[in-house]
Order: sequence, then C-alpha cells, then structure tokens
Amino acid sequence: MTEPRRILLNAFSMNCVSHIQQGLWVRDDTRQLEYTSLDPWVDLAKILERACFDALFLADVIGLYDAYHGGPETSIREGMQVPVNDPALLIPAMAHATEHLGFAFTSSVLQTHPFTFSRQLSTLDHLTRGRIAWNIVTSYLPNAGASLGYGGLPSHAERYERADEYLEVTYKLLEGSWEEDAVLRDTARGIYADPAKIHKIHHKGRFYECEGPHLSEPSPQRTPLLFQAGSSEHGRDFAAKHAECVFIVTNRRRLKSAANIVEDIRRRAARHGRAPEDLRFFQGLSPVVGGTETEARAKEAEFLEQLSTEASLAHLSGSVGVDLGAIDPDRPLETFDSEAMQGVVKGLIESAPAGTRTFRDLARANMAGQFLTGSAEQVADVLQSWHEAGVDGFNLVYAVTPGSFVDFAEGVVPILQQRGLVQRGYRPGTLRDKVFGAPRLPARHPAAGFRR
Amino acid sequence: MTEPRRILLNAFSMNCVSHIQQGLWVRDDTRQLEYTSLDPWVDLAKILERACFDALFLADVIGLYDAYHGGPETSIREGMQVPVNDPALLIPAMAHATEHLGFAFTSSVLQTHPFTFSRQLSTLDHLTRGRIAWNIVTSYLPNAGASLGYGGLPSHAERYERADEYLEVTYKLLEGSWEEDAVLRDTARGIYADPAKIHKIHHKGRFYECEGPHLSEPSPQRTPLLFQAGSSEHGRDFAAKHAECVFIVTNRRRLKSAANIVEDIRRRAARHGRAPEDLRFFQGLSPVVGGTETEARAKEAEFLEQLSTEASLAHLSGSVGVDLGAIDPDRPLETFDSEAMQGVVKGLIESAPAGTRTFRDLARANMAGQFLTGSAEQVADVLQSWHEAGVDGFNLVYAVTPGSFVDFAEGVVPILQQRGLVQRGYRPGTLRDKVFGAPRLPARHPAAGFRR
Repeated sequence: MTEPRRILLNAFSMNCVSHIQQGLWVRDDTRQLEYTSLDPWVDLAKILERACFDALFLADVIGLYDAYHGGPETSIREGMQVPVNDPALLIPAMAHATEHLGFAFTSSVLQTHPFTFSRQLSTLDHLTRGRIAWNIVTSYLPNAGASLGYGGLPSHAERYERADEYLEVTYKLLEGSWEEDAVLRDTARGIYADPAKIHKIHHKGRFYECEGPHLSEPSPQRTPLLFQAGSSEHGRDFAAKHAECVFIVTNRRRLKSAANIVEDIRRRAARHGRAPEDLRFFQGLSPVVGGTETEARAKEAEFLEQLSTEASLAHLSGSVGVDLGAIDPDRPLETFDSEAMQGVVKGLIESAPAGTRTFRDLARANMAGQFLTGSAEQVADVLQSWHEAGVDGFNLVYAVTPGSFVDFAEGVVPILQQRGLVQRGYRPGTLRDKVFGAPRLPARHPAAGFRR
Repeated sequence: MTEPRRILLNAFSMNCVSHIQQGLWVRDDTRQLEYTSLDPWVDLAKILERACFDALFLADVIGLYDAYHGGPETSIREGMQVPVNDPALLIPAMAHATEHLGFAFTSSVLQTHPFTFSRQLSTLDHLTRGRIAWNIVTSYLPNAGASLGYGGLPSHAERYERADEYLEVTYKLLEGSWEEDAVLRDTARGIYADPAKIHKIHHKGRFYECEGPHLSEPSPQRTPLLFQAGSSEHGRDFAAKHAECVFIVTNRRRLKSAANIVEDIRRRAARHGRAPEDLRFFQGLSPVVGGTETEARAKEAEFLEQLSTEASLAHLSGSVGVDLGAIDPDRPLETFDSEAMQGVVKGLIESAPAGTRTFRDLARANMAGQFLTGSAEQVADVLQSWHEAGVDGFNLVYAVTPGSFVDFAEGVVPILQQRGLVQRGYRPGTLRDKVFGAPRLPARHPAAGFRR
C-alpha cells in the first residue's frame, strides 16, 4: 500500500444493556435500554458512517458471568452482559441503512457447527456487499459450555484446538468449495452454476465432520475479515496464524506494553509465513471528550459517580475466572503477595495510580483508569501517540451510547482528519479492500492453502 | 374470537435463485437473481404489507438435492435451491422497513444447538416486536446430515424424536427460564433484573444437554408462532402436538384431500388436549392472475414454455428420496404397477389430467398442474372455496417475484377484501395476536407446561 498508514476506527458495542462501563445504563442520555429495538442500532450505524468509522464491532458472550461471589446474581441485577441477544441479527438492518460501514461480530467456536456458521458468514457478507468481519472467540465462561452440551467448558488448550479445526472447516467451505468461475448466471442457456466447479470438502477431524459443499456461492470477501483478541500464549499464536485484525486490551497508561504485544504477535506471524503488513492491531479505549478539558473532567466525574464497582468486579471476576468478591474490600494491597488471585490483583496494582491503598480503592481506580478524558485535541494527541507507537486502530468503548461516539465523531475525528490520520471518505470495495487494499485473504494466509 | 374467520395470506419464498417453479429465474421480469441483495427483499416486504398479507414465509434446506440421476448436477445447473443462503438474516432489514408484516422462517432441528437457536428466536422476536414465526423442520436431505456431523441423515423416527426434545429445550428456555416479572428496568435503584426470577433449566436428555438460563429476556411472543409442515404419520402427530400453523401441500385439484388432512390433524390435536381453534391450516397455491382469464392463460402458457422439467424432477426426486431420473421418459404410465417408486409415481398419476400417457407427459402435467390460473375473480373464487372447506390460509408460491405477488395483491386481494374475507388493515400486537388474538401460546399447548 502506498498511501500513508491511517488510524482505523471501530465503535465497540454489544447487544445487551451494559457492556464495559458498568452502571451507566440508568442515565437519561444513553439508549442502552433500547437494545432490543432496531432503531438505536440503525441510528448508530448512520452516525458512524458519517464520521468515516471503519466498523461497528459487536462483542458477545454466550453464558453468564457467575464467578463473583460464586454466582450470577450481581451480573443479572446490573444487566452486566445479561440479558444478551444475538449480535449478527442486528447487522442486516444497519447494513441496509448504510453503504460503507463495516460490521464485525463475535461468534464463539462453541456455539454453532461450522457448516451452519459458514452459511451465516456468507449470507451476511453477500447482504452487506462484503462489509463483514468475524471476531473469532473460544469462550471463557463455564456456563457457556454447560449450556451448549459440552458438560462444562472445554480446557483452554482444547478450545484452541477446536478453534483451529473450526477455522479449517470454515476455510474449506468458504475458500475451497466453490471455484472462482463456478457461478455462470447464464440466462440464455438457463445454467446458473457449473457442477464440475463445486466440490465437497469431506472433512473428518477430531471435533468436526462435514461433507459439504458449502451451500452459499462465494461472497465478495469469501472469508470475511478475521478479528481475534486472544492474549494468552495460545491466543497470541492463534492470532498470529489466523487473525488479520487483533484486538488488544492494554491498560491505557501502558503504551509500551501494547507496543510489545504488537511486536510479539508480528514476530509469531512471521513464523507462520505471514508478512507484517498482513496484520492490524486495535487498542480498546474509552474516550470522554469535552469542548474543553474542564468540561470533559466534569463529564468524567459524573460517570465515576455512577459507575458500579460491583458490576465491574463481576465482569472482571468472570473474565479471569476468579472470585474477586471473596476479597475483603478493606484489605490493604501490600498483603496480596502469595495468593491464588495474585496474578489478577497484581495486574490491577501495577496499573493503579500511586497511593491506592485498599482493594476497594484499587477496584475504583481500575474503573476510573479506563477513561481517556480530555478536550478533543488532547484525546486526538493520545490516539496519535498510540498510532506512532505501532497500534493501527482503536475499538472505542462507550460510556453512554450513542453520546460517547457522537462526541468523538464531532470533536476528535475532524482533528485527526486534519492531521491526515483518519480517512475523509471511504475507498471503494469490501471491508478488506478498505483496510488492506485487497478483497480476499492474501496467498500467505493459511486459508489460501484450501483454495483450488 | 368473535370476528368472522378470515383468510390468512402468506407469501412463500426462499433465500435462493429458484424455489418451486423451476426454470423461470432466467426471465427479465423476476428478481430471483438479486437474492443476495437486501433491496428486493425489503421491496417485497413493503408490497406485502401494503396488501395486508399476514407474513412472508421463508423456506430453507441445508443440503443438496442429489437423488436425481444419483447426483446434485441438475440442481446446481438449474439453481434449484442451491446456492441457498440463511433465511433468518433477511428478516431484520425487512422488519425495519415494515410495521405489521410477520416473518416465518425455516430452521431445521439438525442445524443449530437449541441453546444457540433459542437466542436467535428471541432476538428476532424482540427486533420485530413479536412478528416472528418459526417453521420447524427435521430435514430430509441426506447431504444435510452428512455436512452437519451426523454421519448421514438420522432416521425419520430419530429425527422426530430429536425434534420433540429440541422443542422441549426451546420451551424450557423461552417459557420457563425467565419469570414474567423478572425484568425490572429500575433506573432509580440501578436494578435491571431480579436474579431470583431467572432459572437454569438443567436439561439432560437423549440428544441435548443445556444448563441455561436463557440468555435473552422474554420477547413479545416468548415462543414465536410455530409453523410445521409434516405430512407423514410422525409429521402429523408432531404438528398436532406442537404446531399452531400447519402448512399442507395437496394437489390443488384435490380440495377434498386437503379437508381430510385438516380434519385428521385437528383430531390428533384433540388427543394432545388442544382445541380446534388452536390450529390454522395453510395450503400452498401458485396463482397466475390476469386482468382476464385469457390474459392469465397467456401468461401461464409462457411460464409453461419456460418451466424446467429437469429441475422439477430433481426437486421431486430429492424431496421423496427416489431417483426419478432412472425412469425412461417415454415409458408408458400403465407399466408402473409394481415398482419401488410406485408410490411417488402413483401420486403423480392420480392427480394428472386424463390422457397423460408417458412419464415425460406426467412430469410436465405435474408442473402445469401447480398453477392456479384465471382472472382475479376466478382465483378469488377458488380461494374462497378452499376456505369454506376448512383451510384457513394460503402460502402463495411465486412464478416470478415480486410480480406474482403484485398481481395477486392488486387483483385478488381487493376482491377478497370486498367479500369480507381478507383483512383491510392489521390488528395491533404480535403476529400471534394478529392470527390467534393472543400474544402467547395458550395454556393447552405443551409449551405452557414448562412455565413457572
């Protein structure tokens, strides 16, 4: 690509009441309570497209967060990622109201057989004319495994083995089953497709069996743009092999550690025969933008007042599989040396501001630390510094929706556009065209090995 | 219900090139080649809603028709239900462009785990404000079973046992998991839902395991309106137990046999403790409507000229699991006495016009016999006679789309409205409100047994 490396922008959301910044759904200026209606989603998509965002990124979970205090009660009371509806079904309505915006959605390899899922992917990619990305996840909530017939959550290693085979089946269906010129659409002779160019895949693996062929004809991207967010060893290796876009969630004060992750995954990708330009890295950030810094700080203070520590700890506990509710909130931080939960707490402590004393303070500091607060100019500066350090784009977390995105779109985007860092319009073509300059996965990607 | 029994109208379509009337996709006046775009679907939904149709009914298959000549070649060449995309993903865009139209979509119990599928159902029912119907099918194509990891198609009996348990899991999730007043949305106290009123289902059956709870909060209908189309013994019993709307496909000249099926299934339903008014029956019909009968006949003659016998036989062969391609087309009908395929051929012969001599003639006559051709008045008369014989509604098959539906909407609907047989507007509420006058399944339905 000859054009200068631009900042990629995704809005991060979820088909539920409360996504990341817990407790704010009660506010009058957020549409979180309308999540079961199409209108707020269609409105959001239009806002994002006007601001030249690359995509709306929809998170998902398929189970309850039930580690905190040993049960799901806090999550349920706080609407903390439960109830949670299917994200994919929001996309067609938003796609019909937009032309260029991409739609990344999350689907776990545990939830749907790859034959069924591949058809969902192709259908969405057709209906959006190639604007789909799939965020590949392996699930971390035990309740998800128990509700899907696995008798509990498969081990971390097994989930990644499953994921690897799941991708293999998907690639065979999406890339290998229908040849490029299989579809003729020949109305004169009455021939729609050429049977000699459509192939069964005859997959028989450890976890999946699939005869094929794929039921959908090739969509604009064939395999949609691939997102992944693993941070463990397995996760990084999986990303290095399969992902085109990697979602990293580093504490926002630790730019250096984000840069290290980027470098590490790029190095791993090289071992899989992939090139550095085959991957893009997105950092999660939660901007609170004001006309001035003072205005932004006032907004932040209001949010901090309303944030729910309980819901935030329930979220964190479920994410790491440790009951942080078992910790006495008044416990001083210096006593956390040799505990089972030391890893989690250690991570929190390292990123806490100096002077944080108790576990309660730590939990609050952790929530507060998620906000990137400032004038539009200040927030733009921070994004630019991350971008210069090697991060390609951002998944922007809302405090209120669509308000947080509107503030960013109206304040920060024009500044970044003036600096030549954010696009002023969309390039033509599919989402992969827009992000990588080509409609299909490159020949270096493992999916290409399944092409005919 | 005190209002007079009205005729229910569905448009019947499928997310593919060629649905029922094969070979017509090549015409200039049909939008079948645009099936991968949202526009023709959104346009169709608006047409149907203007004409007060009850629903768009989307068929589906999840495998190839490969019985004819022992392979899928004919199906593929003719675009005969392959490629075929996911029907559910069309609905959100159509729902956003309409207010009252219902959306029935087909999903096989073989294709998605009931935990994942139940969330799709609830999400769609939320997004459409209660306008969803699920057409429950068990699949009949061996290729579907082979592509979904069943190592082939499970036996007919096993598929219905699976279906029964699949429904049980679905009912537990949709009806039993969240109590009626579980959702509080209490912004003052910051409580979204009451954990004491949300329950795991702990299902452990022969085919499925599911801990629960359901991830979605109750949608307007909870369990969407239930369609089913089984015609076998198992199929009729299943319909009698579970279905609210039954899709019957009888030869259009055999009104009496349709009336017998209706009576038979109502009788079976009574044995399950259900009332006659709990079920509605829909007959499939393919109207060809002209300003005059002569005009309609001319249209029909054009269609007949273009219909594909090959694709039609491939369709029929796959549906019944018999290779009709093995039959010499010139074989006289009187030689079909004691053959393996006698049953299928016998059915065709019984409904063929007198004077049909060879198998080729028979195949053509079968296709031609599907059309209900006439002036708007004549077609309205036929629908009225079926309605008087006990059929409640119709799934209307297109020859060209949306043309066939437009002809019907502009010609036949106003006449039936004048006769007081078709609604002139929608009653408020969910799809079930519109069809049955209540938003939820009645207490007599087996799903009600899983409520708390």
